[in-house]
Amino acid sequence: MENYAHNGHGNGNSNGLHPKTGRVITCKAAVVWGPGQPFVMEEVRVQPPQKMEVRIKILYTSICHTDLSAWKGEDESQRAYPRILGHEASGVVESVGEGVRNMEEGDYVVPIFNGECGECRCCKSEKTNICSKYGVNPFKKVMVNDGNTRFSTKDGKPIFHFLNTSTFSNYTVVDSACVVKIDSHLSPLTPKNMTLLSCGVSTGVGAAWNTANVGSGSTVAIFGLGAVGLAVAEGARARGASKIIGVDINSTKFIKGQKMGLTHFINPTDLDQPLHERIREMTEGGVDYSFECAGNLDVLREAFLSTHEGWGLTVVLGIHPTPRMLPLHPMELFNGRTIVGSIFGGFKGKTQLPHFAKQCMTGVVDLDKFITHELPFDSINDAFQLLVEGKSLRCLLHI
Amino acid sequence: MENYAHNGHGNGNSNGLHPKTGRVITCKAAVVWGPGQPFVMEEVRVQPPQKMEVRIKILYTSICHTDLSAWKGEDESQRAYPRILGHEASGVVESVGEGVRNMEEGDYVVPIFNGECGECRCCKSEKTNICSKYGVNPFKKVMVNDGNTRFSTKDGKPIFHFLNTSTFSNYTVVDSACVVKIDSHLSPLTPKNMTLLSCGVSTGVGAAWNTANVGSGSTVAIFGLGAVGLAVAEGARARGASKIIGVDINSTKFIKGQKMGLTHFINPTDLDQPLHERIREMTEGGVDYSFECAGNLDVLREAFLSTHEGWGLTVVLGIHPTPRMLPLHPMELFNGRTIVGSIFGGFKGKTQLPHFAKQCMTGVVDLDKFITHELPFDSINDAFQLLVEGKSLRCLLHI
Ligand SMILES: [Zn+2]
Ligand SMILES: [Zn+2]
Ligand SMILES: [Zn+2]
Ligand SMILES: [Zn+2]
Repeated sequence: MENYAHNGHGNGNSNGLHPKTGRVITCKAAVVWGPGQPFVMEEVRVQPPQKMEVRIKILYTSICHTDLSAWKGEDESQRAYPRILGHEASGVVESVGEGVRNMEEGDYVVPIFNGECGECRCCKSEKTNICSKYGVNPFKKVMVNDGNTRFSTKDGKPIFHFLNTSTFSNYTVVDSACVVKIDSHLSPLTPKNMTLLSCGVSTGVGAAWNTANVGSGSTVAIFGLGAVGLAVAEGARARGASKIIGVDINSTKFIKGQKMGLTHFINPTDLDQPLHERIREMTEGGVDYSFECAGNLDVLREAFLSTHEGWGLTVVLGIHPTPRMLPLHPMELFNGRTIVGSIFGGFKGKTQLPHFAKQCMTGVVDLDKFITHELPFDSINDAFQLLVEGKSLRCLLHI
Repeated sequence: MENYAHNGHGNGNSNGLHPKTGRVITCKAAVVWGPGQPFVMEEVRVQPPQKMEVRIKILYTSICHTDLSAWKGEDESQRAYPRILGHEASGVVESVGEGVRNMEEGDYVVPIFNGECGECRCCKSEKTNICSKYGVNPFKKVMVNDGNTRFSTKDGKPIFHFLNTSTFSNYTVVDSACVVKIDSHLSPLTPKNMTLLSCGVSTGVGAAWNTANVGSGSTVAIFGLGAVGLAVAEGARARGASKIIGVDINSTKFIKGQKMGLTHFINPTDLDQPLHERIREMTEGGVDYSFECAGNLDVLREAFLSTHEGWGLTVVLGIHPTPRMLPLHPMELFNGRTIVGSIFGGFKGKTQLPHFAKQCMTGVVDLDKFITHELPFDSINDAFQLLVEGKSLRCLLHI
């Protein structure tokens, strides 16, 4: 599936890299050449990792709505082609660049799209998991070190990176700030279900735990029941929420969702009253926490109004590629409702994800139930279709 | 200035009220008859307090921007005439209605526009100072008990109430949920400076203490340096903030503001760069807390962008009588900045204001420096003009 070859771009032994690892790898990747165009399995060249970079052999990858948005090119200003998408994966370190500590060949890792440099003002603060240097940035398409790509076509055309990760490839190169070593020796954690830690489940569970700090006995409404929304339910269930109301226009989501802890379900198309009124009726004036996972501003407004005045917190997880501004009037803030965004569930990836992985090992959160499909890497276009049609939570691609 | 008279409206002895107090009082009030029209000193009739209501003899009142907005009739849907405005005051209980406990004739009190019933879900929660029954409501113009007014003209025309309080009158009737008994025996707290507890200073100091929880060593920017903005500075100073940046288009505000703790001042009209960029430069990437006290959405956006990514908190105090929605894009929430509204500084009036009053006695906060002018009640139109022209922080009217 791949072979090592010396390359002619000066990244050989002369630059101080380890002789064995300072090589270009030629391997297979799913490349997208334009908005909404089918993925093409191509032979690509992957440069060796530079200073503080890591080259990872991807074992499994899956597809998330952020990939879907980028694939469709929904935000024109973020388009860049050819490109290797993908950001939810697990793999094993193939080689590390100069200066990388605490990680070596053979380590099981997950890439994280929201990195942690450990040195910027944000990383040093306990109040945020944003990183000023390696935080998630949908406009970024090259490496921080030199502004170049580590991917190219056989004939030398650069292929752009995506979300610090680019996991739709046998091999990828990422900044070491965007790789987390996971202790995968203990069952039931495996390289397969570890993939879910890389984005969806961490994002949802973390939003409930870290961003909202859902407490025992509290009430929750979740708008949009994809993998992230259901991971919120899983997190709220683990915290002992008394009522977890799922909202989706696809009623079949409730079947799966009950396993994650949903206690109630609303299909807004069945209602003859505003959604937020219905939720307020069900919860003595409104839920304590609402989570918007739909990426729709009208839904976001309903989520905001569904919370209780005085303390209701709305957590935004959905991506909103729209020119519209927040549909909230400034005076509505005086009702005591708050709205916050949550990135990667508020987890600081490098320092907090290993602990979350341990909690998954002990059964606090069950990763496996989020894997609804598995396909070979070659079938990536089919896997995308499953997500587009709302049929899969996560389809795992075997690489 | 006033005289007692039996009235013919059935509020005499027959309804179980104390014989001495169940009388209509005829006294002087400043009545507004239309948007922006001068106040007219009128003889008005003030009904006795009904069940769970309190009639207060006002000793001092002052004028706040909320009075100014209502006087101008900025929000047409909130207009109601004739009306008695005013919500910042101190006084003494003249009589109480049936069922009122812990308050009696002669007690020194301040009215609060944001009441506390003690029994609704919000009042029972520690997370909010909103009250579902007696919370601030700019649309409210009559009493909760019976939907009627307690004020009328000499010839019986009803005069509307304002913000639960209507303090531009020798006597007013308010729900007991909207009156706080203050221990005024200890110098330097007096009925005169107690007036400041009724709105402006509590709102500003409380926003810094309760809503934002400003910590020692943190950085603060305040947009709009009226009494509320400067009270925020006073609160941030008391908490040990290291940098308190005042922003106002009137540079003379800095002179007064230094006494409240302002360490820096920016007049945005002097800048050749965006305001938020300047503030970020001054504070290693942004302040920890910004406070919008100007009631202007463009200012609000600058306040939001002036905070540090990851943890910046913008507290909205200004009144925004505009049809415009929040000028924030949903994706901007993912930078980790939060925006919240603050009502009455987050203080639960009846349970927390007495403690705040004690803190003022011990010098944690100095109320007196907010009183810049004093005038007789008759000069209320002059006092309004001082506020309109930005010349006064608080002009105390002696009643
Ligand atoms: Zn994702
Ligand atoms: Zn960082
Ligand atoms: Zn006020
Ligand atoms: Zn209440």
